[in-house]
Amino acid sequence: MKIIELSTDNRCQFVDITAQVQALVSDSNMASGAVVVCSTHTTAGITMNENADPDVVSDVLATLARLAPRRGDYSHGEGNSDAHIKASLVGFSVTVPVENGGLSLGVWQAIYFCEFDGPRRRRALVQFLPSP
Amino acid sequence: MKIIELSTDNRCQFVDITAQVQALVSDSNMASGAVVVCSTHTTAGITMNENADPDVVSDVLATLARLAPRRGDYSHGEGNSDAHIKASLVGFSVTVPVENGGLSLGVWQAIYFCEFDGPRRRRALVQFLPSP
Amino acid sequence: MKIIELSTDNRCQFVDITAQVQALVSDSNMASGAVVVCSTHTTAGITMNENADPDVVSDVLATLARLAPRRGDYSHGEGNSDAHIKASLVGFSVTVPVENGGLSLGVWQAIYFCEFDGPRRRRALVQFLPSP
Repeated sequence: MKIIELSTDNRCQFVDITAQVQALVSDSNMASGAVVVCSTHTTAGITMNENADPDVVSDVLATLARLAPRRGDYSHGEGNSDAHIKASLVGFSVTVPVENGGLSLGVWQAIYFCEFDGPRRRRALVQFLPSP
Repeated sequence: MKIIELSTDNRCQFVDITAQVQALVSDSNMASGAVVVCSTHTTAGITMNENADPDVVSDVLATLARLAPRRGDYSHGEGNSDAHIKASLVGFSVTVPVENGGLSLGVWQAIYFCEFDGPRRRRALVQFLPSP
Repeated sequence: MKIIELSTDNRCQFVDITAQVQALVSDSNMASGAVVVCSTHTTAGITMNENADPDVVSDVLATLARLAPRRGDYSHGEGNSDAHIKASLVGFSVTVPVENGGLSLGVWQAIYFCEFDGPRRRRALVQFLPSP
């Protein structure tokens, strides 16, 4: 297992970590199998989405902010319930097949670390599941 | 790894691919482990849900259309931001345990390819993670 | 593969099953790899979230109830469309890395079985994917 460390700059932000995941897969010498990329937090998740037009990610973030507004009628006293909710909506991990040492992603797919309560120092775990 | 190729007929549509995934698991001779089923797109996801009453899937699609309306206040210029958002909400893959060569699904569970920007030719990857 | 059996007490409820998953991982003698925890139902999912303040989980449940109200304009005749929708939003499984025989969870992360149509007897599958 490997760890990706990152620092986020905004309260809500998607950080493309595809290249870092691919580099770790290459270093692992895994030819075939899958890789699991996990957030170790409860106010940050992991998803995939388009890697080309940054407006796509902006639209995802804006919609999540509409579905779970920051100032909502929440019980949790820390003021970040929206972040916990958004993380459960997008999910905390992705599992990506690996073939010939490469991530089997579609042309437009990127792996995003989803910050919902930054800026902070954050971690994503990368676990290798090689086919025997 | 194997590929399921499919053609969707509508802009938004859930296609039951359970039988195709099971057939690939059977062909793989994997006895025990898990299978990962992934969309290679950013406007189509993968989820599970009920296999019996098609109204269930209609209700899921109708609710997603309410949460991320097609004509929303989006930045992305291609007119399919709703599709990108819906895909991140349902997720891009499912991981299903396999035992005795069969998918360990509940009685009512089906694996659905979730088209949100069709009709199109689409692909789902199926990766085998056998227990050693 | 192992099965966690549980009984839920309310219609909607998150049940922390982290300790049960860890116990099964320990019993399995898997040192390194990942564990997949899956709901076998279509009106109950699996997610992660905070293990400390129960208000976090209440806020997630309240927001899901707002996004998919119980009494909505649904087609499915059984009156539980909201439960099917919520399960597809949070997802039906989590995959958690394992290292040194332990779940690689963050300090605040718990694994939750997400009941959306209880109270019922329910099952979660736990599959082990050891690194070879």
